Amino acid sequence: MSISMSSASLPIFRTGLQNLSHILAKGLASAQARKFDPQVLVTARLAPDMLPLSRQVQIACDSAKLCVARISGVDAPKFEDNEASFDDLTARVAKTLEWLESVPAAKLDGTEEKEVTIPTGRETTRTMKAEAYLKHHALPNFFFHMTTAYAILRHNGVELGKLDYLVGAR
Amino acid sequence: MSISMSSASLPIFRTGLQNLSHILAKGLASAQARKFDPQVLVTARLAPDMLPLSRQVQIACDSAKLCVARISGVDAPKFEDNEASFDDLTARVAKTLEWLESVPAAKLDGTEEKEVTIPTGRETTRTMKAEAYLKHHALPNFFFHMTTAYAILRHNGVELGKLDYLVGAR
Repeated sequence: MSISMSSASLPIFRTGLQNLSHILAKGLASAQARKFDPQVLVTARLAPDMLPLSRQVQIACDSAKLCVARISGVDAPKFEDNEASFDDLTARVAKTLEWLESVPAAKLDGTEEKEVTIPTGRETTRTMKAEAYLKHHALPNFFFHMTTAYAILRHNGVELGKLDYLVGAR
Repeated sequence: MSISMSSASLPIFRTGLQNLSHILAKGLASAQARKFDPQVLVTARLAPDMLPLSRQVQIACDSAKLCVARISGVDAPKFEDNEASFDDLTARVAKTLEWLESVPAAKLDGTEEKEVTIPTGRETTRTMKAEAYLKHHALPNFFFHMTTAYAILRHNGVELGKLDYLVGAR
């Protein structure tokens, strides 16, 4: 059986977000064990002009959500980007997972040639076929923000290994 | 047309490696413009017990190469992991791209159910279907090392933006 648009998106985002949730749990546990305010990690950055952990998690969630919404045509809930703690961020991941589970695979399948338009700036957009959008934009973007979240925690001494990213808590 | 094993792997790895080459060029140019030894970046890490830039690039290359070799059954050349400069690393990416171009798409197509065995330790392996291996191991692992290479440079003041990662030099 060949790969479908749903099988090339939903399970990848689901596994990634579950693993992100696991990585966040290890971040929180590390701050508690080392007895410092977990907020330090929530607002930590790899460079002064890079986004902090909270935004990396929000964008990873939205990469998955917006990809599935744009391809399937199913409206996605808007989230306020007001998460300010590990608990908030974990809840954001859970809400995103819950919505992804609600999207029928059939709404994604057969959309390879569908045109998808994404914003590239305040007044500019880019249009591409759904298959190219998934493979060359949405998936790389999703993993970019997941890995950056991991890297922020790892840089700050959280004991993470690549299996936490690839396999998660299982 | 549905997504094939070749179209879900080769063009994604190709685009990623081309963008990685572009990111490395910006790293080298940044060191030269800021007048410090580029080797500082080649050996830079995000944490003392994380791998340096050189290893991140080598592993990104091997993630792509080994994935395609394992799925297609085409033997891949072994590289020595002896790259010690930006020029070496750029050549490693180019050699990997050249080999990927030589693999016929037909060798990858139809392999969704093929069993692939990967090492998980010195004496342990894991076996999974090629489609699951591609989606849940090879692609996330490839983007992990690409993003970590980007993050090491970005953390060290190289002027990179996400478009360098997503779109590259084009």
